[in-house]
Amino acid sequence: MPSTPHAETFPAPTPAVSQVFTTVLSHGPLTRLEAGRRAGLSPAAVTKAVRPLLAAGYLAEDADEDARPTPGRPATLVRVNGERALFLGVKVTGTELIAVLTDLCCRIRLDRRRPLPDRAPGAVLTSIAGLVQELLAHAAESDAPVAGLGIAVSGDVDRAEGVVRYSPFLDWRDVPLAELAATTTGLPVTVDNDVRALTVAEQWFGAGAGLAGFALVTVGAGIGCGLVVHGQVVAGAHGVAGEIGHVVVDPAGPECHCGNRGCVEAIAGESAIVARMREVTGRQVDDSAQAVALAHEGVPGAREVYARAGEAIGRGIATVANLLGPERVIISGEGLAAYDLFAGRIRQAFTAAAFGSAARCDVLTRPLPFEQWARGAAAVAIQSFITQPPGIGQG
Amino acid sequence: MPSTPHAETFPAPTPAVSQVFTTVLSHGPLTRLEAGRRAGLSPAAVTKAVRPLLAAGYLAEDADEDARPTPGRPATLVRVNGERALFLGVKVTGTELIAVLTDLCCRIRLDRRRPLPDRAPGAVLTSIAGLVQELLAHAAESDAPVAGLGIAVSGDVDRAEGVVRYSPFLDWRDVPLAELAATTTGLPVTVDNDVRALTVAEQWFGAGAGLAGFALVTVGAGIGCGLVVHGQVVAGAHGVAGEIGHVVVDPAGPECHCGNRGCVEAIAGESAIVARMREVTGRQVDDSAQAVALAHEGVPGAREVYARAGEAIGRGIATVANLLGPERVIISGEGLAAYDLFAGRIRQAFTAAAFGSAARCDVLTRPLPFEQWARGAAAVAIQSFITQPPGIGQG
Ligand SMILES: [Zn+2]
Ligand SMILES: [Zn+2]
Repeated sequence: MPSTPHAETFPAPTPAVSQVFTTVLSHGPLTRLEAGRRAGLSPAAVTKAVRPLLAAGYLAEDADEDARPTPGRPATLVRVNGERALFLGVKVTGTELIAVLTDLCCRIRLDRRRPLPDRAPGAVLTSIAGLVQELLAHAAESDAPVAGLGIAVSGDVDRAEGVVRYSPFLDWRDVPLAELAATTTGLPVTVDNDVRALTVAEQWFGAGAGLAGFALVTVGAGIGCGLVVHGQVVAGAHGVAGEIGHVVVDPAGPECHCGNRGCVEAIAGESAIVARMREVTGRQVDDSAQAVALAHEGVPGAREVYARAGEAIGRGIATVANLLGPERVIISGEGLAAYDLFAGRIRQAFTAAAFGSAARCDVLTRPLPFEQWARGAAAVAIQSFITQPPGIGQG
Repeated sequence: MPSTPHAETFPAPTPAVSQVFTTVLSHGPLTRLEAGRRAGLSPAAVTKAVRPLLAAGYLAEDADEDARPTPGRPATLVRVNGERALFLGVKVTGTELIAVLTDLCCRIRLDRRRPLPDRAPGAVLTSIAGLVQELLAHAAESDAPVAGLGIAVSGDVDRAEGVVRYSPFLDWRDVPLAELAATTTGLPVTVDNDVRALTVAEQWFGAGAGLAGFALVTVGAGIGCGLVVHGQVVAGAHGVAGEIGHVVVDPAGPECHCGNRGCVEAIAGESAIVARMREVTGRQVDDSAQAVALAHEGVPGAREVYARAGEAIGRGIATVANLLGPERVIISGEGLAAYDLFAGRIRQAFTAAAFGSAARCDVLTRPLPFEQWARGAAAVAIQSFITQPPGIGQG
């Protein structure tokens, strides 16, 4: 092993310590005063939280030559010392692994993709281990220890237990992935649902930064949703949350793999669109790219398939807005490739179904390649590192 | 005026002070250690928060003779000094005012009902003022000052601004109720949506106590929903949240006053049930009581109306569970009077539409008379008192 990550520990992570660290991490260099204001902590609490973080080298303080509150006396800025530790993030899709090596600021230093020939847990684990070894070899060129590995998987993932309860795309049930990967790689491992992991990255560094409440809706093979309420990602009491894909928008609609009819995913998920496109056009359609092409060619009925999908997504988003009143909804995912085909209908259905001032919610799109999802996995590893007492989650 | 409530102030309400106070308020007498554990605060932070609260008489400390950690040395328990201040809570329905006088522990000392002959804002204000005067006269018998008035109204209420933006049942738009009532009564006034106010009461003293996440669904003239996520009531970025009544469960369903079709409220709200009952049975049906009677008499088709309503409610609850994963859903409201008619169907529809382990959410019913809603209004007045700097919200 190129490093001894088990030795790496973070100062006793009291709520204030984690909060100050996360605030500085997501907002960049801040004065202590500003960090306290944003974290809702008193100056004394900030001082107390910053002290051990400075001592252990996770935070650094620099005089800021540009910001002088009084002439001749530069303001001191607190920043995260990115070089202090490294993290790995892996996003597992049904066909591919996407991995990143990041620093403690979650800046990507390196990214790699590797096809996934076999979805069985053992085979996936071997692929992950190979990719991790490759990235660890690069990490060894730096002095910084690798302090954690995050793995993001779609489906019902119990982060606290480290178990993938059910992942339809991988066809996994109750796989203790954190423990298995920790044994294989020797790293502390955090597993999380992929959309929740991406939501953490968006909250820290993306279009959700600084917002108390937002929703990230991902459109692709599945229709997922990460929710931030009161500044925290919603995990659900039993591990299920953000299942916008299984909001029923038409009880007379097509059957869904969940057993209901007319779920958003059963109308607007990739395979639903492909199947419907075959039905409507009578042509051979194998994947999304072909479905998009038919719509762009103007084949009769093809555009209507996307309009219907857009309506389902717009209604799903309105349901989220009516229940939670987020400040913003971010739409992302591979499905954005076809966005021109359903954007108008999404917006129209959202506006029609949003109740009163819930319609004032800001809806925007943001392309986030899989490297950003892998970065989300690294972000949850950083989150575990800065919130868990050492020893927990280490296989 | 029987008291000078403006003079009443609470110690500088830092987050820790509010948190410790609320924890002791909802859990009853606690050791400092236990209060800190439940509030997520260090012993030092608890000591610092408790000190000004003891000094100002809002908290009291008693030796607990029953709980001795070491023989001969009784444990000291911190409790809220209920006698220290009084609060008023008023729930406004379309036909009635329900008011309570509570102590600082939100224990009801007195309750009163008064019919509302006129729904115009001025007339409602006059009725509120009369009822408040009556309760203040009783309050004057005690030494405790009345420190705040809470008013709960259904609809889109902006608590921060003190404005009722839209209340369909009162037919109000943009009524600055907090300011008007503060001028009329001389009290600091907090207005809030009635379901959110009831949710605060359930969170502090009811079936939601100690839960990080729960939903309160109210079934009656409207179908409302209060949501607690991460230990806080969800207010929504633009004042709209918990609109389970306008989750569309059947796009081919009946028209709703919101402009959509097949909303939960358009199928399961009181007037929807009454209208549907007329249609199905061909009889004269004026109110819910008559609708319930027809179903109990076994008039053909009548039970099916409730079954359909139950299905809509069950689906709405499943949507909440799929998105937020609450630990518990509490069903309440006047509609419980007909609960035997749709309970089975609610449960059946919920179970069918809940995704994966979201179905493990505990669904229970709880009759909460309007006095409890008025108590919720008093609870938000207490909440304002203990979280707002003095001067804010005082007309
Ligand atoms: Zn489904
Ligand atoms: Zn509606």
